[in-house]
Amino acid sequence: MGKYVWNGERLLNRAEASVDVEDRGHTFGDGIYEVFRVYGGKTFEPELHWARFERSARELRIELPLPIAELERGVEELIEADGLAEGIVYLQLTRGAAPRAHPFPAEARPALTAFAKPLERPLSALESGTSVITRPDIRWLRCDIKSLNLLPNVLAKQEASEAGASEAVLHRDGVVTEGSSSNIAIAKDGVVRTHPANNLILHGVTRAVALRLAAELDIRVNEEPFTLDELYAADEAFLLGTTVEVMPIVRVDGRTVANGVPGPIARKLQAAFAKRI
Amino acid sequence: MGKYVWNGERLLNRAEASVDVEDRGHTFGDGIYEVFRVYGGKTFEPELHWARFERSARELRIELPLPIAELERGVEELIEADGLAEGIVYLQLTRGAAPRAHPFPAEARPALTAFAKPLERPLSALESGTSVITRPDIRWLRCDIKSLNLLPNVLAKQEASEAGASEAVLHRDGVVTEGSSSNIAIAKDGVVRTHPANNLILHGVTRAVALRLAAELDIRVNEEPFTLDELYAADEAFLLGTTVEVMPIVRVDGRTVANGVPGPIARKLQAAFAKRI
Repeated sequence: MGKYVWNGERLLNRAEASVDVEDRGHTFGDGIYEVFRVYGGKTFEPELHWARFERSARELRIELPLPIAELERGVEELIEADGLAEGIVYLQLTRGAAPRAHPFPAEARPALTAFAKPLERPLSALESGTSVITRPDIRWLRCDIKSLNLLPNVLAKQEASEAGASEAVLHRDGVVTEGSSSNIAIAKDGVVRTHPANNLILHGVTRAVALRLAAELDIRVNEEPFTLDELYAADEAFLLGTTVEVMPIVRVDGRTVANGVPGPIARKLQAAFAKRI
Repeated sequence: MGKYVWNGERLLNRAEASVDVEDRGHTFGDGIYEVFRVYGGKTFEPELHWARFERSARELRIELPLPIAELERGVEELIEADGLAEGIVYLQLTRGAAPRAHPFPAEARPALTAFAKPLERPLSALESGTSVITRPDIRWLRCDIKSLNLLPNVLAKQEASEAGASEAVLHRDGVVTEGSSSNIAIAKDGVVRTHPANNLILHGVTRAVALRLAAELDIRVNEEPFTLDELYAADEAFLLGTTVEVMPIVRVDGRTVANGVPGPIARKLQAAFAKRI
């Protein structure tokens, strides 16, 4: 990570920053987060990220410590202080520290932590495509909240990692939901399909951007669930995510997707996406 | 909480203790915990707690920082340093601090945090019984792991709290699993029923103790799921948990359980439990 941590009040040197042992983020995962993509020193699609952040906070009834405009300014100052050109900003908000008890505490003050990290675009993988595995989706039923309860995502990603894949695509009884840290779409006969933005998936910013770009490019999109079998038989498949952007999938569970190279729809979306950066 | 925090190496003053901002407990809920009941300065049923702790760690592939015997000694020293007679020890182990990325980090060192807290037995509620509400169980499918991913439990408990109840009893499509921080059993025609100890519930220590006591008392137990309707129509219902012990339920969703007073099976189990303390 970068040199500084922003706590909503000031920039701390990394070594000064810490979390209380009774912070509910630490004891319950009682908090939310966002990962902002930074290109050329600027956050990408900040409105969509902040809107989701506000929504996650509202759903969990965590009060924002500052108005969004001030949060935005804090993130900009962090990017500047760290001299970040290409990378991410991780921003987390918990319900705060309080004596450990499940119900919301009366007195806790929400605790904010933000830090920056340099990260290059995955240009080579964007060009050649990536491999994924599939795994049962064992997560809770509010995946639309971008919460800190990420253990099932961690376990799935670890399995992907050990299988030599970059992502685990999750499914409930054979119906594909999303990846452990990305959304997924397929294309068949020129039509894109991706799971509807309900409680079973995170409403990804890159997913929203891709749908907007598809509309501009006259690519038809059905926001409908698809099955594992449809994934295996797709003409194209791609991940959508803040750091993976529009990432073509060329292998699923060791099987080649179509002819094993990124397809034309993924290419068009990538090109349109690159123009927005 | 008490005066000290034990980090697996030494006792720190509460004010000195903190968690790294990149601790995976804080960013992913990537860790486990136990709550030990302390009666008369001694942990209650420590073998069962440590066995579960070891199992949780193994399931998540988190390495224990010390052998169980040394962890046990550390907890005893914490209890002694804090002068705790009646209360709990909260002990948490995370996968440690590492640059944020979903897969298990190569280098992280598991981080332990333990603290004590005075807590009296809930004698009045044990005598008069408690009220619960029921809510859909939206948790992940590895509730048998005592992990830090507790947000659905927090939300359910908060709903209970706002409804003037002490616990939210969770159900999947009408099949009762357990409470947000306790197990649950019913009695009908002299037979106790409680959800089997599979992936859908936490394998509670008090549940295990109660089953052992029931066997000793010649009370028949079926480890079989029961429905919401069976809960409403039960002769008796009770929560089982480290701090609630054997807690009679006298109201569910505002309806009186049987005649609204703790029943004979709960009483027998409470008496046998009290003898073990």
